[in-house]
Amino acid sequence: VSSSEGEIAAIERIRLVLPQPPRGEIWIGDDTAVVAGPAGSLLLAADAVVEGVHFDLDLVDTADVGWKALAVNVSDVAAMGGEPLHALVTVVGAAASMIDGLARGLAEASAAYRCPVVGGDLSAGPCLVVSVAITGACDLGGAVLRSNARPGDSLFVTGPLGRSAAGLRGLRSESEGAHATQPDLVAAYRRPSASAMIDVSDGLGIDLDRLAGASGVGVVLELVPVADGATREDALGGGEDYELVFAASDPQAVVAAFSAAGLRPPIRIGLCVEDPATRRVGDETLEASGWEHRLR
Amino acid sequence: VSSSEGEIAAIERIRLVLPQPPRGEIWIGDDTAVVAGPAGSLLLAADAVVEGVHFDLDLVDTADVGWKALAVNVSDVAAMGGEPLHALVTVVGAAASMIDGLARGLAEASAAYRCPVVGGDLSAGPCLVVSVAITGACDLGGAVLRSNARPGDSLFVTGPLGRSAAGLRGLRSESEGAHATQPDLVAAYRRPSASAMIDVSDGLGIDLDRLAGASGVGVVLELVPVADGATREDALGGGEDYELVFAASDPQAVVAAFSAAGLRPPIRIGLCVEDPATRRVGDETLEASGWEHRLR
Repeated sequence: VSSSEGEIAAIERIRLVLPQPPRGEIWIGDDTAVVAGPAGSLLLAADAVVEGVHFDLDLVDTADVGWKALAVNVSDVAAMGGEPLHALVTVVGAAASMIDGLARGLAEASAAYRCPVVGGDLSAGPCLVVSVAITGACDLGGAVLRSNARPGDSLFVTGPLGRSAAGLRGLRSESEGAHATQPDLVAAYRRPSASAMIDVSDGLGIDLDRLAGASGVGVVLELVPVADGATREDALGGGEDYELVFAASDPQAVVAAFSAAGLRPPIRIGLCVEDPATRRVGDETLEASGWEHRLR
Repeated sequence: VSSSEGEIAAIERIRLVLPQPPRGEIWIGDDTAVVAGPAGSLLLAADAVVEGVHFDLDLVDTADVGWKALAVNVSDVAAMGGEPLHALVTVVGAAASMIDGLARGLAEASAAYRCPVVGGDLSAGPCLVVSVAITGACDLGGAVLRSNARPGDSLFVTGPLGRSAAGLRGLRSESEGAHATQPDLVAAYRRPSASAMIDVSDGLGIDLDRLAGASGVGVVLELVPVADGATREDALGGGEDYELVFAASDPQAVVAAFSAAGLRPPIRIGLCVEDPATRRVGDETLEASGWEHRLR
């Protein structure tokens, strides 16, 4: 076991020890599990935010942490084409003075995403961890799986990327005395918005690599959708944008469907290709860079 | 905000900020939430185990931690009269060398309780936290709520108490060179068994206080069910026993039902009374002592 083993390899090791899903269910490997219920599929996802890893209390307040803990889970459910139903929250290591802020942020996200917090756990601990689990329903005739991309499909992203990374960089330089950063970039970092696929939580490069690997296709990016105020590196590897990336065989139909629904049309960024080893952005290699946790 | 505010007061503060449940659902306050689904009630619970708070890696191994993280959640669902369905696991701060052990313990508990782990999250972090969320089904025509006790009801517990606390004390004195402890007490600490109501996870005194408070009754204990090798204090305040305490209006019927199901008959330990302020064990005051987390 390498001490620098990453999250993805470790999840694969865990998956092999645990029982495998019955046909028609998705368990470990996607961001969101799909299980059969008596009245259709239930989506299940969990994500933790950790002080010093996902947030820094010098840069955000506890309400932002509560918001983010719920929003990242809503994003996982949305990435499967689902609607959030209920959330459970475990808070570890919060000082008493943090409780009201955490609860306010959770309540705000809960209202924004219509996803009530119905229970959880509160524990002492040496560091602040907020772990949220969420249930969701599939309205759209089946979950959108990252393993469904086919060669020839177009790749889309629901919006320009890199705002969160640019916002974090701006907050850090503000705390060192630099001038104030664009408020919308700061907001993108402090209050990420889940949209309604795989979400670009870890960085476009790594999330596309996962989509391609799960689907057995290669990917060729023709366009990097960089947000105003962000850099190309922010867009490719910054992560935490919570825009959705997805593949679709009929690009015109996708744009028409988004428009008909009154949504901002997604940005076509590239193509799926036959060779499963292909990872390109223009003429360069698309690095699977981004936010993969290194274990300690 | 007092800096020594406890878990119960903090949960109440959180509950007041968050939206309230519709009629027929149970949200924050019970160990397990009950939400309406299209095909009946769904139980939802989450509990975290934290290094240095719920376990000490000098005394247990990582497989024990994985087991315990799942078993405590199964116990929460069982305490509502439910069966576990699926679990989500978030692991924060695990070294790469801990992954196999955690996965093995999770797999063993998952098989023992027929509760597959279907997903979760793995994150870097400064301390080891394993947070599990669980879904469950109610087979028994409705959840067994801690708020259903009525004056005159008998109080039962499904087995003698204090084994886990005695096992932990034994392990600690072994590590200081004392002679070996009874293996069954050590097993009760390292591999707690969820049984099939409120579970005595925090200590009989505090869990009875919660049951009484939620039901608006007082409680009089006539008997403290002390396990072999445990002390009266272990039984009243040690916690982590995962036996179930419940109130029932017809004690003979309860014992007959357990026997008919081939289960060890529960132990009748006392009575619910009208005065909601009463907390007695014999002639003494029943202290709400036990395992309430102090926030930092």
